[in-house]
Amino acid sequence: MDFAYDAKTEELRTKLLAFMDSHVYPAEAVLEQQLHAAADPWERQPILEELKAEARRQGLWNLFLPDPEHGAGLTNLQYAPLAEITGRSPHLAPEALNCAAPDTGNMEVLTMFGTDEQKKQWLQPLLDGEIRSAFCMTEPEVASSDATNIATRIERDGDDYVINGRKWWSSGAMNPNCAIFIVMGKTDPDAERHRQQAMILVPRDTPGVTVKRAMHVFGYGDHAHGGHAEIEFTDVRVPASNLIAGEGEGFAIAQARLGPGRIHHCMRLIGMAERALELMCRRASSRVAFGKPIAAQGVVHEWIAESRVRIEQARLLVLKTAWLMDTVGNKGAHTEIQAIKIGTPSMTEWVLDKAIQAHGGAGVSQDFPLAELWAATRTLRLADGPDEVHRMSLAKRELKKYL
Amino acid sequence: MDFAYDAKTEELRTKLLAFMDSHVYPAEAVLEQQLHAAADPWERQPILEELKAEARRQGLWNLFLPDPEHGAGLTNLQYAPLAEITGRSPHLAPEALNCAAPDTGNMEVLTMFGTDEQKKQWLQPLLDGEIRSAFCMTEPEVASSDATNIATRIERDGDDYVINGRKWWSSGAMNPNCAIFIVMGKTDPDAERHRQQAMILVPRDTPGVTVKRAMHVFGYGDHAHGGHAEIEFTDVRVPASNLIAGEGEGFAIAQARLGPGRIHHCMRLIGMAERALELMCRRASSRVAFGKPIAAQGVVHEWIAESRVRIEQARLLVLKTAWLMDTVGNKGAHTEIQAIKIGTPSMTEWVLDKAIQAHGGAGVSQDFPLAELWAATRTLRLADGPDEVHRMSLAKRELKKYL
Amino acid sequence: MDFAYDAKTEELRTKLLAFMDSHVYPAEAVLEQQLHAAADPWERQPILEELKAEARRQGLWNLFLPDPEHGAGLTNLQYAPLAEITGRSPHLAPEALNCAAPDTGNMEVLTMFGTDEQKKQWLQPLLDGEIRSAFCMTEPEVASSDATNIATRIERDGDDYVINGRKWWSSGAMNPNCAIFIVMGKTDPDAERHRQQAMILVPRDTPGVTVKRAMHVFGYGDHAHGGHAEIEFTDVRVPASNLIAGEGEGFAIAQARLGPGRIHHCMRLIGMAERALELMCRRASSRVAFGKPIAAQGVVHEWIAESRVRIEQARLLVLKTAWLMDTVGNKGAHTEIQAIKIGTPSMTEWVLDKAIQAHGGAGVSQDFPLAELWAATRTLRLADGPDEVHRMSLAKRELKKYL
Amino acid sequence: MDFAYDAKTEELRTKLLAFMDSHVYPAEAVLEQQLHAAADPWERQPILEELKAEARRQGLWNLFLPDPEHGAGLTNLQYAPLAEITGRSPHLAPEALNCAAPDTGNMEVLTMFGTDEQKKQWLQPLLDGEIRSAFCMTEPEVASSDATNIATRIERDGDDYVINGRKWWSSGAMNPNCAIFIVMGKTDPDAERHRQQAMILVPRDTPGVTVKRAMHVFGYGDHAHGGHAEIEFTDVRVPASNLIAGEGEGFAIAQARLGPGRIHHCMRLIGMAERALELMCRRASSRVAFGKPIAAQGVVHEWIAESRVRIEQARLLVLKTAWLMDTVGNKGAHTEIQAIKIGTPSMTEWVLDKAIQAHGGAGVSQDFPLAELWAATRTLRLADGPDEVHRMSLAKRELKKYL
Repeated sequence: MDFAYDAKTEELRTKLLAFMDSHVYPAEAVLEQQLHAAADPWERQPILEELKAEARRQGLWNLFLPDPEHGAGLTNLQYAPLAEITGRSPHLAPEALNCAAPDTGNMEVLTMFGTDEQKKQWLQPLLDGEIRSAFCMTEPEVASSDATNIATRIERDGDDYVINGRKWWSSGAMNPNCAIFIVMGKTDPDAERHRQQAMILVPRDTPGVTVKRAMHVFGYGDHAHGGHAEIEFTDVRVPASNLIAGEGEGFAIAQARLGPGRIHHCMRLIGMAERALELMCRRASSRVAFGKPIAAQGVVHEWIAESRVRIEQARLLVLKTAWLMDTVGNKGAHTEIQAIKIGTPSMTEWVLDKAIQAHGGAGVSQDFPLAELWAATRTLRLADGPDEVHRMSLAKRELKKYL
Repeated sequence: MDFAYDAKTEELRTKLLAFMDSHVYPAEAVLEQQLHAAADPWERQPILEELKAEARRQGLWNLFLPDPEHGAGLTNLQYAPLAEITGRSPHLAPEALNCAAPDTGNMEVLTMFGTDEQKKQWLQPLLDGEIRSAFCMTEPEVASSDATNIATRIERDGDDYVINGRKWWSSGAMNPNCAIFIVMGKTDPDAERHRQQAMILVPRDTPGVTVKRAMHVFGYGDHAHGGHAEIEFTDVRVPASNLIAGEGEGFAIAQARLGPGRIHHCMRLIGMAERALELMCRRASSRVAFGKPIAAQGVVHEWIAESRVRIEQARLLVLKTAWLMDTVGNKGAHTEIQAIKIGTPSMTEWVLDKAIQAHGGAGVSQDFPLAELWAATRTLRLADGPDEVHRMSLAKRELKKYL
Repeated sequence: MDFAYDAKTEELRTKLLAFMDSHVYPAEAVLEQQLHAAADPWERQPILEELKAEARRQGLWNLFLPDPEHGAGLTNLQYAPLAEITGRSPHLAPEALNCAAPDTGNMEVLTMFGTDEQKKQWLQPLLDGEIRSAFCMTEPEVASSDATNIATRIERDGDDYVINGRKWWSSGAMNPNCAIFIVMGKTDPDAERHRQQAMILVPRDTPGVTVKRAMHVFGYGDHAHGGHAEIEFTDVRVPASNLIAGEGEGFAIAQARLGPGRIHHCMRLIGMAERALELMCRRASSRVAFGKPIAAQGVVHEWIAESRVRIEQARLLVLKTAWLMDTVGNKGAHTEIQAIKIGTPSMTEWVLDKAIQAHGGAGVSQDFPLAELWAATRTLRLADGPDEVHRMSLAKRELKKYL
Repeated sequence: MDFAYDAKTEELRTKLLAFMDSHVYPAEAVLEQQLHAAADPWERQPILEELKAEARRQGLWNLFLPDPEHGAGLTNLQYAPLAEITGRSPHLAPEALNCAAPDTGNMEVLTMFGTDEQKKQWLQPLLDGEIRSAFCMTEPEVASSDATNIATRIERDGDDYVINGRKWWSSGAMNPNCAIFIVMGKTDPDAERHRQQAMILVPRDTPGVTVKRAMHVFGYGDHAHGGHAEIEFTDVRVPASNLIAGEGEGFAIAQARLGPGRIHHCMRLIGMAERALELMCRRASSRVAFGKPIAAQGVVHEWIAESRVRIEQARLLVLKTAWLMDTVGNKGAHTEIQAIKIGTPSMTEWVLDKAIQAHGGAGVSQDFPLAELWAATRTLRLADGPDEVHRMSLAKRELKKYL
């Protein structure tokens, strides 16, 4: 047992921390201005492209992808502390490094399950940061945490598949540069529970695809990320070769995709919590009320100490989960992936809440990143399955130990 | 001791509940459309004016004002259950009844402390719902929960006062119809702690007044309410007759204003929590996951039951506080006003959080009012003094019992 | 709506508060000494008999019993604030006033359902405080919150009933002065769910009754209360006239008994919380750490203020429930009785936890009543049905509003 | 970074787990019986001596002591998972392995600071498990978390020191086999804040030493552990050679002693939480209410899953802290030692609370270890400094990062 990062990780951490200081944090205000000035808020903002070019130049690129042929070839354990750092500026850093969801998950799917043709056409431009992508799973009409509820149909018709259905919370899809959608639907509703689904590649400009509207998240549009779209698929026809893996493989691909996706979210959430704690400490030190700095109030000590304890605990479980994924595989790490999915968002939400409180009115406003980080974090108690579903599942496995 | 509403209250509740069903709830979608379609989001939306006309026709007007000459002449205890009902649709109902903050507080200040001339010029159009007003107290540079921190200056210069300073969170001030600001500042920074401040009337169009920008609350602009403005006052000159009450009276007026203001917020928060619980129950009954309605999951039972218990407890303390204000005065009810200020926002926040969770992704979106209600509620743990300041003050009084 | 106690309540409160000061609080140390010195800890302690005599002399006797023929004839709303006061010294005051569980519930059962003969033989000595009684419902082998689980049999055999079964948590039954048990069992296991049970009077000295052992509550024996016994009933034969009401009436009697029983517990819990808050304030004012009194630490302010808010909220819901029981009956108050059963113990537990923390090591010890009050309070989250069962039931009723 | 235990740890874990199954768990009921049957509850129970002999025979002895000359020579990181296992049966396993507080801390003090003579006389019999010891620091009259509050005096008089003062919570001191006390007091009250104190060895039978009484912990006497004594020291005279290290060294020794002491507590707390979770799962699977096992209730799933997440997080932080103590020393691990002292007891308390709730009445009784474990755990939020003091200190260090 050893709690020190390895040399490669330390080297990349040093590099990335410097990049954050020199490029990312200064860019936060620039992004805000560019978004404010943009005619179309969904346009790509120039600052992002600049950051991407610089990050790639520095070798801080595709760090998330363990496949050494396409990505940086890091283990999950090596990537985790880097993802954490990007979480400190989640609107800029992950995309700057081409490590932003949902592209990361989509690239992994294509790396693992894509045909050579699919890789050439969609994986390569994604790896190069030229296009973005969306993942269309959640549906408005049903509780999508139960995959058997999915109503979208993917039906074979000659050499094509025809897709009909309605999706929402398709993150990134409002971005005009988002060129390709991975759509989950049912090819065989009568098959066994977890063999009914498939995934298929649908280019954004395919006839029948209608991006209906942007969903709001606590008032935010998540413009820099390409928002979250509601999309209608009406008799959308794509070649059969667009199917990923095969009919009935959708649930298995989703499971393969969700493990890394969840841990990436958790890594970044640790970074968000660290950012919040830093802002809380700085604010508390600089404001005076009733004759002494807020930082000298006992209740603020409670918040700060409790934040530090919770962050340390959560980080270690995320790191252990990454280590398990590396050593026993994503399936072997299933319980731990659920554990961090349950434990991390609520931890970060708690720290953010206290940081907001320490900021007074400024905390809920656009003058600090806290409120927007809070909204993103709160949503992660719901996204990729609500906490309650994961708790139920984890508890059932725990109970089985004693049967 | 008697827990039944009196006859007048019951009569008005019946009338108001019918008005909510027939006019307010149906108007929610209309408001959303009008705001969406508006060239200027700060414009008054026609639906609001229609609702105001109808409410006034029905005698549901100025219910908040205990002064029978200018208002409905209800006691706090009679008004409380009505304010609660308006809280179920807080973007429409309070203003429809001309009972929206900050106008309510401002009208009370003018009723209690205004000169005849001030009443004629500003109180009357406010009572008639023709103009709106703002209350400019909080400042960006200091912890404003400590009134001695206020930096804005109100200086006598001949027959005028000259105002210099910067305010933010001036609610309603983005609304072009917001014609008058009540501004708090210091007339004598060297006086005794609570005799340094004064309040003065500043028409919006006075030279030197610059509305700088709208503050966001989480991602919301609170457009229907006129937003929350940051305002710069640079050598703003108004006649000395615009001063309210007198130099050094500002703190006392603020205290007089805040008591009713806080209880009104709490009354409406009870209504918001009831709305959230209703939405949670309806959603839980209508969604199926893993073979049964969400409403049949044990954890949802916990949320619903716990919500009901917390709402009932909080409502009773708000009602008792109203009764105390009626029987022993606002000062005599000071402890209870603080108690509800501490207890009610966090209760409503809790219920809203669970309601959001039961809605999945829809809960954080614009398709339900939950996320926006949450943002408003969260802010009330900060507005009018953060919880921690009220807890400190209440605790000190409790400790004095045993000295 | 009126939040003032009526004149009779005020008069009795004044009397009882004086009795607490002059007799009860000083007796706490005496009880401790007598228990410590006793050869048999289950013996009646002389101090209790002295207090009973004095309370009866002062007319502070049987206040719980609304029936004016046998009791004080107070409404629930009048009794509630008095029961609260007794909760401040729960090992002495309730029994001193002949208002201690489980006798109160047993006396109510006999008042409502007893025959003249049963009343003469058992109710009268209970009303006179000459004997004590136990209520034998919970069983060790099953989840007793589900009444259909009850396994004890009450079988007719000629002119007798024969009882077989095992009970535990029969409070008071270790007391040698506990002369009579009310035993719940099944007369007809095949009847409709709520018509299977009956209740029967079993004198303690009936052959076949074996008091097996005393249950501990955390480390406490609850000696002053007569403890909590495990009792075996083996072929226990009593005359058929000992049956209360009739075969199949057991569930209905239990329901009738539990309503008042639960509210009495809640009333006393409010008093316990007040005692804890008082002790917390006194301790925090008298101890110095790191150069200032603990009372000046911000976190202690949080505890004190939050305690005050929670106590006020909980008390009002208890009082409203009492008012509902008086005005619409115990059945009409069912939801509220559940609500206070859910909300009050956890509130008091919270306040006690903070009071203990403020006392340091002394808080968990025998030098203050806090730890023992905590144990009693914690148990009330389980007794008479665990919180989770009540929440499930309350939630189902709430959900029905929207079906 | 590596999350696997090393080979030596795995080997000892396997051995210890087998010892728990074959010897410790079966001994729990035996201990209960022996304590119950004992004339003097403070007597050593034979079962403990049997376990000690067997453990020593198996080489499971003095595992806590990193010093290879006197102890097992394990690192903190190697010992941590073993201490965790002993925490599953905390009344038997730690003492069986001669790894029970306060002897562990006292042996460490003597190993590090004792003279050869002190080692020979007191360390050796402690290492051999022949005597036990107590640590007398906390005082009844002052908030002892602030070491400058200590009032006990250690005054030089010729070749002796004379001790006067009153201590309580001297754990183990009720045990007649507890032969030696390490007493903290002030040699120079006028010295610099942390140079006023010293520690001195006081044999139990020294004239002037009076063990006054046993403190209760939520009703428990902790008999198997030798309880917690209040002790009076009146003109207690011991040779000057009994002083440990030197005058003014007391605070430094206490700090050196507390680090390992705190982490040992935390390690065992993890084991207690695991035991509680196991008991909760077993009980929930075996009880039926309302037609299905309690384990199928959603709320129980929440408890189980949340317990698992919290245990995993807490364990990792304890292990990392052990690793830090091994690699950068106890001082370098100061923040983490505080972090686990803050985070672990409340975690275990939470899990125990849910396990108790799942057990119904049985959970608070003597039939399961849960209630007694709860009392011990709750006390650890106070012992060795209350959580609030540690949070304040940790927060101040966190804040310094940004000054």
